[in-house]
Amino acid sequence: MPAPIDFYFDFSSSYGYFASLKIDELAARHGRDVNWRPILLGAAFKVTGGEPLLKTPLKGPYIERDIARSARFLGIAYKPPSKYPIAGLAPGRAFYWVNDSDPALAKELVQALYRAYFVEDRDISSPDITADVAALVGLKRDEVLAALNDVAVKDKLRQEVAASLKRGVFGSPYVVIDDEPFWGVDRFDQIERWLAHGPF
Amino acid sequence: MPAPIDFYFDFSSSYGYFASLKIDELAARHGRDVNWRPILLGAAFKVTGGEPLLKTPLKGPYIERDIARSARFLGIAYKPPSKYPIAGLAPGRAFYWVNDSDPALAKELVQALYRAYFVEDRDISSPDITADVAALVGLKRDEVLAALNDVAVKDKLRQEVAASLKRGVFGSPYVVIDDEPFWGVDRFDQIERWLAHGPF
Repeated sequence: MPAPIDFYFDFSSSYGYFASLKIDELAARHGRDVNWRPILLGAAFKVTGGEPLLKTPLKGPYIERDIARSARFLGIAYKPPSKYPIAGLAPGRAFYWVNDSDPALAKELVQALYRAYFVEDRDISSPDITADVAALVGLKRDEVLAALNDVAVKDKLRQEVAASLKRGVFGSPYVVIDDEPFWGVDRFDQIERWLAHGPF
Repeated sequence: MPAPIDFYFDFSSSYGYFASLKIDELAARHGRDVNWRPILLGAAFKVTGGEPLLKTPLKGPYIERDIARSARFLGIAYKPPSKYPIAGLAPGRAFYWVNDSDPALAKELVQALYRAYFVEDRDISSPDITADVAALVGLKRDEVLAALNDVAVKDKLRQEVAASLKRGVFGSPYVVIDDEPFWGVDRFDQIERWLAHGPF
């Protein structure tokens, strides 16, 4: 079986949310597993001079419209969150904590968190809300809250963010297949061809 | 017949070059004409804090790779220019001068200029080279050089750039259909649906 794909995303990224609903099925059609890796894009923005998309003059209003239209185009439920961007620390830590023992459950958790933020307008940067959402996928609320304060869990997220920067990840979603990087859910057509027919 | 589409592009933009090879055919399939409008993205970058894509840390190296890969994906001839970005004054002025009397020829001129820059690595920011390329599509070299220094032609480009900014154009390619904006050649799938079935 060929090597797994790496899928990087930020919890404030609506395009990352869209990608999370498509990537596993796309990869599976071509016999690939996917490693999910939540990151904190703020770290990359310090290097690129970038900023949260919706905050940029001229570009921000367009992106807001593009996100809603792209959701309709892709057939995905979406409601603009009232708080943006949010810090991805709590959801990111919860993910890596679960991922250690159960990657499939960790993916379910991401989808529940993305849904809470991008459909139900819940502020998942709050540890309490992240724990509430985690309970929806069967995790114990108290254990989640404890994990969010665990030094080893905090370190794990920090290491993953540093590793993503070292690899050149500057946006979300960002997919790496056999060292080939693809940025954006609008590169899924190129990913499909790459997986089906190899490098081009 | 429905209103024409507006197609904004910068002469340093490889994605604009890709779009220029697709937009007229796409629009024609749905009974639409296209107004081509070269702009100078530098003016928008002053507002957005953006910068030429290839110059951005982390993002630049990715974009370089993405442009070449996207050209192969789309089946378009492409060779990275040695000078980037270039000033779009000479080609932009030449365009608006020709466009006044012959929009079809002005489009041919753009395609010849884009080809010179993105396939043959010729520096079309030079008035001499823009005039050489214009001669390839049947224009008189001396008349082109005179037009590039014509105050009315210079004003026309300046006005078009100002109008594009007022309309919110911040990138290339940027397509506006009945007041709906689409940024990027990777939105051509959404444009296709919009033209075929109306707003979504």
